[in-house]
Parts: sequence; structure tokens; C-alpha cells
Amino acid sequence: MCANKLRYAVIGCGAIGGYYGGRLALAGADVHFLFHSDYSEAVSRGLQVESINGDFLLPHPQAYRDVAAMPPCDVVMVSLKTVMNDHLTQLLPPLLKPSTLVILIQNGWGMERDLSLLFPELKIAGAMAFIASNKVGPAHVRHLDFGAITIGSYCGEQEALLLQVANDMSNAGIPVVLAPDLTTARWRKLVWNIPYNGLSVVLRSTTDQLMQHPDVCALIRDLMLEVIEASRLFGATIPESFADEMLEATRKMRPYQPSMMLDYLYHRPMEVEYLYSRPVREACEHGFLMRKTQMLEQLLLFNNLHNVAEKP
Amino acid sequence: MCANKLRYAVIGCGAIGGYYGGRLALAGADVHFLFHSDYSEAVSRGLQVESINGDFLLPHPQAYRDVAAMPPCDVVMVSLKTVMNDHLTQLLPPLLKPSTLVILIQNGWGMERDLSLLFPELKIAGAMAFIASNKVGPAHVRHLDFGAITIGSYCGEQEALLLQVANDMSNAGIPVVLAPDLTTARWRKLVWNIPYNGLSVVLRSTTDQLMQHPDVCALIRDLMLEVIEASRLFGATIPESFADEMLEATRKMRPYQPSMMLDYLYHRPMEVEYLYSRPVREACEHGFLMRKTQMLEQLLLFNNLHNVAEKP
Repeated sequence: MCANKLRYAVIGCGAIGGYYGGRLALAGADVHFLFHSDYSEAVSRGLQVESINGDFLLPHPQAYRDVAAMPPCDVVMVSLKTVMNDHLTQLLPPLLKPSTLVILIQNGWGMERDLSLLFPELKIAGAMAFIASNKVGPAHVRHLDFGAITIGSYCGEQEALLLQVANDMSNAGIPVVLAPDLTTARWRKLVWNIPYNGLSVVLRSTTDQLMQHPDVCALIRDLMLEVIEASRLFGATIPESFADEMLEATRKMRPYQPSMMLDYLYHRPMEVEYLYSRPVREACEHGFLMRKTQMLEQLLLFNNLHNVAEKP
Repeated sequence: MCANKLRYAVIGCGAIGGYYGGRLALAGADVHFLFHSDYSEAVSRGLQVESINGDFLLPHPQAYRDVAAMPPCDVVMVSLKTVMNDHLTQLLPPLLKPSTLVILIQNGWGMERDLSLLFPELKIAGAMAFIASNKVGPAHVRHLDFGAITIGSYCGEQEALLLQVANDMSNAGIPVVLAPDLTTARWRKLVWNIPYNGLSVVLRSTTDQLMQHPDVCALIRDLMLEVIEASRLFGATIPESFADEMLEATRKMRPYQPSMMLDYLYHRPMEVEYLYSRPVREACEHGFLMRKTQMLEQLLLFNNLHNVAEKP
């Protein structure tokens, strides 16, 4: 363990960043929040979190509206939607020291590599949030279920720092797993995300509605098995039985609107690129056609185009 | 040519049967129409056809509401939706003589075989209507575009009778092709129907909207090539270049709502079984997985269930 207290930045204070950053700050960590449209509310009313594990309010979060005003940090937690990742070239530099670790708490495949191409010296980790939470108002997050986070190093060398982050999170009441293999961890999450996020949009249905229909269950399973097969091209080790585990777990979940469904309902751009296009394209480069995933990608791209254009 | 004038029955007097039967009757053929909900209007106001080739009215069609009242016929044209084919066991027997030819003017695969299992001695042909027409009111059809019909014998032995039917149709102004190979003809139509019917429902879009989106065009092409590949298992001979021909032809068509989209919009059951489930299942029995077609089938089954349940 390092002796020094870590300084955190949270980029993207919505359902994910607001919750995890909020918990860390509540537990006494030094957390600096970048807000966008919610800045004034965060300053005037604080960051409010309703949580199944207990509600709390941070009356005076260290809030910023511009990264230029933020201090360099030890850890930058990026919890933007991946559709915003183009902005990282501007957002990150003011926050970086040579030792800074950037943790991408995002869904999809390929974000870490893209970031490392932009910042070749950067220390990068990826994280998967297993949480049901929504932003229900400005600087106001509602945490509905679950809450664990899995973190894995991208280039495999920040073990001490990651341990310290995990320790801070544990102390803040966040169940945390350090994944020995980020690739496997990312693809395990894709096994769930690819069928449920996409089909919830294409079929305009919550998880429980999807699970009630045997043909859709069969399709979900086909997609899961296709994702598992693709994952092996990248060195992930996921047994086929994981598909049935995920189906069973989802069957037991309370009705849930996946994040992509919420994006669709609010006419926001959907994360098609990193969740679908990138896995399909890279698997294809390895000679494997993810036929059903690609079809879902194609349907989502059409939906995305029309949905964003029809924003009221 | 036979010397005797043929007696026709038309079962299902909607957009297809009303148009083709109406043209035959207008040209002097002996056509007996089975109406369902439109019977009283057909009797009181006649059968009305608006057509790009000239509007016409049959003021006194030979209309029936019950097959028991109809005479045995030489030719029975079945232009019901395939979701109604279960009713053929009741509808056909009163119309049959030993020499009767039943022509299924329907979309899909496997209807002729199902019918031959029910009526082993029956003479059967299949027909594909290449027409844009809609029923716009009771006993009132609007013919918008195209109009040709392709007919092929199912068991290959009614050549003389089919020639006579083709002759009657030609005389009635209906462009008709006698297909030497019904299997190839059916699958050629499926090459168009499988992508456009299903995607028009899943993406709630007309053909022109689908064609405007390059990813959807790529998906349509993938589906077409999958259908062509499957068709070979059944002995059809369709070159791959047919996919690009169909794409090009559709690009040039005026905006069109495929029949399945209309069924969806009116909360009627969709023809998923013969258009999707049967081809997928039979191809699978031959060891070929129609992965994208199957996915479309699964999405349509879900849509069908919810759509029919939500009928206002």
C-alpha cells in the first residue's frame, strides 16, 4: 500500500461516475468532479445519491465545469458514455501526471487501445460497473440494484496503484474485483451487453419482456454463444456455460431497462461503435463473422440515425 | 388448348384475389368469388378495382359467402394469407372435382407440400404475384404498380391446364409466366420477400427508407445471399448476382410498404411461418444455418405476438 492518499478525478458525473465518485468522496477520499450541464446544481444543492445501500448528499463536492481548473490527479475515472470518448484528447491532459492512472468505467471493446494510441505513455485500466443506476435529475443519481465494479489493468503494470484504488473503493462500500485479465472481463460483460442492450432497443422491451418469449431467449443465447466464440480470438477464456448462467441470472433480475434502451428513449446517441461495431470488425479481421451481432449492429445503426434525428 | 371454358373459384378476394379474379371475370371468364366480411358490399355495390391499367367495376360478381353454395371448379385460386391455410381443409372439398387444379397464389415456402399432405390426390400449382396492390375498402382493390404473375406446377403434370390458365390470364391483360421450376421461382421471390418484408416491420420503414441506409443495404444483401445459398439445398438455381439485381430494382421502385408491414400496421397476424420459420427449419434439416434469416424470424415472432395482442 502507498502511504499517500490518492487524488481522484471523475469525468462524467452521471449514473456511474456520480455514484462511485460520490461514495468515494463520502468515505473521505479526495475526489474532484467534472460536471457539465449539472454544474450549478452540484454547487448550489450538492451531489445527491439515493441508494439501496443508504441515501446520501455531498453538500459541497469539489465541483468543476472546466478541466483547466482541476488539479493533476493520481487516478482519473472516466465514466462518460463512449460516444464522448473523442473529447478525451481535450479533457485528460490537464489532469495528468507521469504516474496518473486513467480508469475507463465503460462498456464495450477497444476503448483502452484507442486511448493508448492517443496517449502512448498513459497508464490505463478498464472497469466494468455491474450496477443498476440512473441519473434522475441534475446532480441527482438513483442507485437501484447491484453495485460491484471490476477493474483490470490494460498494460498490466499498475498493480500497487490498482490495489490502493480497490482498497479505497472497498472502504467506501463499493464491492470491487481486480480482474487478472481485462480482456476476459470486458468480453464477459459483452456477453450480457450485446444481446440485452441491442434487443431492448430493437424490440422496445425491458429484460423481463425479452425473457418471456422463448424465441427471443433462443436468440439471446445464440448471440451470447457468438460473443463467447469471438472472445477466444482475443485470448479471453469464457466457458460456454457462462451463457446459461447469464440467462438464468437475468431471468431472476427485476425488470430492467438497459442503458442503451434509456439512451434510445431519450433520443441520445447509442454506444453502437464500441459495443457492436468494434467487436464485429475486429472478429472479422481474425476471420470470424459475428453474423447475428453484426445484424444487431446494422439494425441499431438504423435506429440510432432515425432516433437522434427525431429528437423532439 | 382445351375446348371447354374453365370455371374458376377465387378463395380470398383481397388485394391479390380481387385483382386477378376481377380481371379474369372482366375478360369474360367464369369466376366464382368467395367473400368473407365483404360479401354484402360485393353483392350490393359490386367488386371495384382501381388500377394503373384502367379502373373497372364488376357490378354483379358471382359472389358467395359459403363454399357449400359454390360449384365444383376446374381451377381454384387461393389468395388467402398463409396464416389462414389451416382453413383449406374445410374450404376446398366442395370445390373439387378429380381434375381440379388448386393454385396457391401466396408467398413463402412449403405451402404446396402441406396441402399435398392433406389432399394426396390433389393437383397443385404455386404462383407468385409480382404486384403492388392493396385492399382499400370492402370489395374494393387498388392496384398501384406491376402486376405479373408466375405460376409453376407443384408435381409437374398439369401442363395443358396450366397453359389454358395462362391463356385466360393473358387475354385478361395479366402478364403471366409459366415457371419450369416452381422451387426456383418460389425461392427467387423469397430472395426479395425475406429481407424487405421482415425489415420493414422490424425497422418500421418503407423500402425506400431501408435503401437509404448503407448498413441496412448491407444487411439486406447478406440476407439475400443467405437465402440464395439455402435455396440450392432444395435444388433451386439462382445466381448470386440476382441479389444485386433485386437491390438495384428495389432502389428504383417507388416507396413501398411490403405486405407484412401492412399486416403489422393493422395488427393482423404476420406470415412468419411460411416466409421465415419453414425455410429456416428446412435449411437447418439440410445442415445449413440461415443465421440472419433466423434472427429476423425470432424478432418477427416477438413483434407478431405483441402486435396482435395490442390490437385496438
